[in-house]
Amino acid sequence: MTLLPRVTGPDRLKELSPDQLVPLAAEIREFLVDKVCRTGGHLGPNLGVVELTIALHRVFDSPTDRIVFDTGHQAYVHKMLTGRLDSFDSLRAAGGLSGYPSRQESPHDHVESSHASTSLAYADGLAKAQRILGEDHRHVVAVIGDGALTGGVAWEALNNISGGNRPVVVVLNDNGRSYDPTIGGLAVHLSALRGGTHTGPNLFEQIGFSYLGPVDGHDVDAVEEAFRQAVRLNRPVVVHCVTEKGRGYAHAVTDEADRMHGIGVIDPETGKSGGGGSPTWTASFGAELTEIGAAHPEVVALTAAMLRPVGLHEFATAFPDRVFDVGIAEQQAVTSAAGLAMGGLHPVVCLYATFLNRAVDQILMDVALHRLPVTFVLDRAGITGPDGASHHGMWDLALLGTVPGMRVASPRDTTQLAALLREAVATTDGPTALRFPKASAGPEIPAINRMDGLDILYRGRSQPLDVMIVSTGVFAAPAIRAAELLSSNGIGVTVVDPRWLLPVNQTLVHLASRHRLVLTVEDGVRTGGVGAALAQACTDARVTTPVHNLGLPKEFLDHGDRSAILAEHGLTAESIAGTALTLYGAVSAQHTASLEGTRR
Amino acid sequence: MTLLPRVTGPDRLKELSPDQLVPLAAEIREFLVDKVCRTGGHLGPNLGVVELTIALHRVFDSPTDRIVFDTGHQAYVHKMLTGRLDSFDSLRAAGGLSGYPSRQESPHDHVESSHASTSLAYADGLAKAQRILGEDHRHVVAVIGDGALTGGVAWEALNNISGGNRPVVVVLNDNGRSYDPTIGGLAVHLSALRGGTHTGPNLFEQIGFSYLGPVDGHDVDAVEEAFRQAVRLNRPVVVHCVTEKGRGYAHAVTDEADRMHGIGVIDPETGKSGGGGSPTWTASFGAELTEIGAAHPEVVALTAAMLRPVGLHEFATAFPDRVFDVGIAEQQAVTSAAGLAMGGLHPVVCLYATFLNRAVDQILMDVALHRLPVTFVLDRAGITGPDGASHHGMWDLALLGTVPGMRVASPRDTTQLAALLREAVATTDGPTALRFPKASAGPEIPAINRMDGLDILYRGRSQPLDVMIVSTGVFAAPAIRAAELLSSNGIGVTVVDPRWLLPVNQTLVHLASRHRLVLTVEDGVRTGGVGAALAQACTDARVTTPVHNLGLPKEFLDHGDRSAILAEHGLTAESIAGTALTLYGAVSAQHTASLEGTRR
Repeated sequence: MTLLPRVTGPDRLKELSPDQLVPLAAEIREFLVDKVCRTGGHLGPNLGVVELTIALHRVFDSPTDRIVFDTGHQAYVHKMLTGRLDSFDSLRAAGGLSGYPSRQESPHDHVESSHASTSLAYADGLAKAQRILGEDHRHVVAVIGDGALTGGVAWEALNNISGGNRPVVVVLNDNGRSYDPTIGGLAVHLSALRGGTHTGPNLFEQIGFSYLGPVDGHDVDAVEEAFRQAVRLNRPVVVHCVTEKGRGYAHAVTDEADRMHGIGVIDPETGKSGGGGSPTWTASFGAELTEIGAAHPEVVALTAAMLRPVGLHEFATAFPDRVFDVGIAEQQAVTSAAGLAMGGLHPVVCLYATFLNRAVDQILMDVALHRLPVTFVLDRAGITGPDGASHHGMWDLALLGTVPGMRVASPRDTTQLAALLREAVATTDGPTALRFPKASAGPEIPAINRMDGLDILYRGRSQPLDVMIVSTGVFAAPAIRAAELLSSNGIGVTVVDPRWLLPVNQTLVHLASRHRLVLTVEDGVRTGGVGAALAQACTDARVTTPVHNLGLPKEFLDHGDRSAILAEHGLTAESIAGTALTLYGAVSAQHTASLEGTRR
Repeated sequence: MTLLPRVTGPDRLKELSPDQLVPLAAEIREFLVDKVCRTGGHLGPNLGVVELTIALHRVFDSPTDRIVFDTGHQAYVHKMLTGRLDSFDSLRAAGGLSGYPSRQESPHDHVESSHASTSLAYADGLAKAQRILGEDHRHVVAVIGDGALTGGVAWEALNNISGGNRPVVVVLNDNGRSYDPTIGGLAVHLSALRGGTHTGPNLFEQIGFSYLGPVDGHDVDAVEEAFRQAVRLNRPVVVHCVTEKGRGYAHAVTDEADRMHGIGVIDPETGKSGGGGSPTWTASFGAELTEIGAAHPEVVALTAAMLRPVGLHEFATAFPDRVFDVGIAEQQAVTSAAGLAMGGLHPVVCLYATFLNRAVDQILMDVALHRLPVTFVLDRAGITGPDGASHHGMWDLALLGTVPGMRVASPRDTTQLAALLREAVATTDGPTALRFPKASAGPEIPAINRMDGLDILYRGRSQPLDVMIVSTGVFAAPAIRAAELLSSNGIGVTVVDPRWLLPVNQTLVHLASRHRLVLTVEDGVRTGGVGAALAQACTDARVTTPVHNLGLPKEFLDHGDRSAILAEHGLTAESIAGTALTLYGAVSAQHTASLEGTRR
């Protein structure tokens, strides 16, 4: 490494001669493979944008010119070229370098969210602002993948940019895929453009963009020249760069699954992980759905460009005609599922919990309003870890809590996952949702008994019904441990797993009335969460037992280790027990005081 | 009227000879103008689709063939031709004919939601279901306006339909506008197609659709022939029908504002309403924002294809370069606003409350995550009335309640609207939202005093602090009347308007601790609402005063009169007082019982 360490910022990059750029690119790739194999992270996408990013920072003048990266996981090279080379050892660790652009890290970073397809709308807004403020010297650049172009908000923005006639440079980073190969008519069109078999004005030109390309995205000179030409055009331009995901790292290029889109810690020589590990929730779900599929021909599955990450590859192999990849297009996933249900099938829409946010209106108005039997399976629910604020699946419970007729379950173990999934798929009169975390699945947690659909998991030996802990999903285990700790303090504890968290089970309200304190535990945002719903139901029923809600604060939570983040927010056995102890003490003291006050 | 009454269903329509169709169309228009002028409703859109709808029901075999109307307000003619002629006197009245397709009304109706741009995704789902179920005899037809094509979910579906190679007939009802003229590069392209000046494969063909057109959408024969050809193609087809919004009714055609998109009761001869009426919230907002705009050059405004309905026309006249119509594209509205804010401006995004659902992810991830100073102004918040389930603005408080850093206000009168809007626009460290209803603005309601941002509106003379009513927005007036009623029953009442509803003001928690009962009043869904947030904050602070939440149930509410719907859900002065009386009686009894129990 002789060149890369000298590039401490875009100015130094601009000083390099053209013949130094090929060796620089090689050094960047060597660095990327070395570092990301140690920390885990997004490898394939960044290997694909090395030359493109070099060209960006040689032609444009960041941060005066604003470069917005769509799905910011493709910004590693950008980080390396803007002075953050030394921070890569801490990539995605708590307190370390973010896996996405971060405004706190650098003035060269703008958009921190990693939900796809938004860069064009940001660019449109920035271009409008610059026009109003008379900042005509600044350029706006959006770097967006072909996969992200399948998302609706990208189309909305394309329409606005092309109609607005303000200069915006759209860099189309076309590698033919997101995680999976890009789907739909757009992909066919882009393929024709790449192959040069296309005639007449293309899609972008039809709606008013200038179009430059296709350019070999691994030829820095060619990309630089295209960018310079785009600037000279001084209007909306698409620069079509053809790139290869995983470029330069054989294990990535030959990985047909996802070209090492995102990896854990792996050996850079072999491209393999240390291996082992417990079966994940995702794998258990995938196996179970495949079994269900065999018995239920009406069951079909949908994914938004993430067949494998949501565990659908086994189902897809068994029933290739019954699985639909809709692209990065959650709205389409939900509303086409509504159409499938109207047509007589039972769709299972498989999403990461955080991406459910993209289709709230479609869940409300297209599915729930028509009481359609659509099942949502939300993977990566709760705290996810190293991907940070925009990947934690912490909004789904609160959002689904507002949807009429929506039933939401969270299995505590894979036995319950199987049972609840079957109950969901057997539901015919409205939508259902299941959520589970990004984690290994633990051992089975048997119920002491079932009561109107609720599972009693623990019942203290001491007679008075002091504290009820309502655990959701995987919090069953820490809730039981907390109960054991409380029992050893002489407090009578019941632990209940409601299984179906929403709507509130009225038996839970009845049980609450027989305890002196209720504690709810969930890893979603507390406001409007499952615990808040139980509290409201208790008040409605004039049950006066205080219902305290443990959960995540209404804040954006940084990246870090999942367990550490849960601990920080009081969601461990010890914390739950400690909180219960304090609150129960207060409730008892209040009760005693009220007795004494009355006596006086 | 000799033909229309004979058309009791699609079969009878098919029996008519081609030369009877022009007089039939005339009868339909006469009927539409007559009826809709009496009841109010969507006039312009339906006048534009008369011939198109006749052709649909002559060529296709509904309900075996599924005809899905986008933004179902264009389905009046469809209703007339499917046996519902006699119900038009009750159009949009409680218990009467819905202004949108209704599955309860007819097997010919499929999609009830009236949020735009979804018909293509439904059609894609239906086509997939039919393919799996081997129902190749059924056709799927989606009728979508050019305005709705600017919405992202329409693009997501176009991409899926064109890539899927299943037969779907997309009827593009191109009248060049939604409420307002359609914007963006798409509109320019469609205009070229309409004018025949276009060469080479068009946008639809580029992504894989067959294209038929442009067809004169008022020539039934031509439209029928195009539909038949589309069926023969047996693959994804766009039939481009050029129509005129308001066709055949001079007052609509010459109405440049919106071609009588939706009207109240008007005189069919003059096209004018009875006139008068109090100033609306919309008008007050528009005037105030224009004043603010003069003093604050950084303030810009955005609308999603509804400049006039959200009150922005005055601002647009004063500052034409500072207002942006983004099309029916709420995601783009929000994310481009994020870009505008990043660029140094203060965007005010003006939406109907119900359409905020379309951009939940963008509000969370694009605006709030970056703590950007964007102000949302939500018109038609709460119960709207005759437009029914998909137009009630009842989700915004619960949805915004989950957004970190989001401040939400609801003014009780127009004086407060002006003050709160100025506070919102002066906020620089995060997003703000204001909500107000579809109603006339009432008289000013002065505060007795202000306390940490809260307004005390009423304080009972009796000394004990029995009941606190927390009113939101326009519920200040009924809350005060309820307080007067309760006072006459000897109960000490405080009425508080928090002004900023979210986040919860801790002074409100303190006030709650000094009362024996708290009642919150809001016209959003109760689950996860403002009242629930206050209850949670009280529990967190170990305040044991019961906090009862009045609001809307977690249900889809039918169309009907706004006041009647509010009354049905206990949101009148009398109901609030009655509920308070009952609950306070119970609280008192409980207190007395506990005293007695202790004495024993």
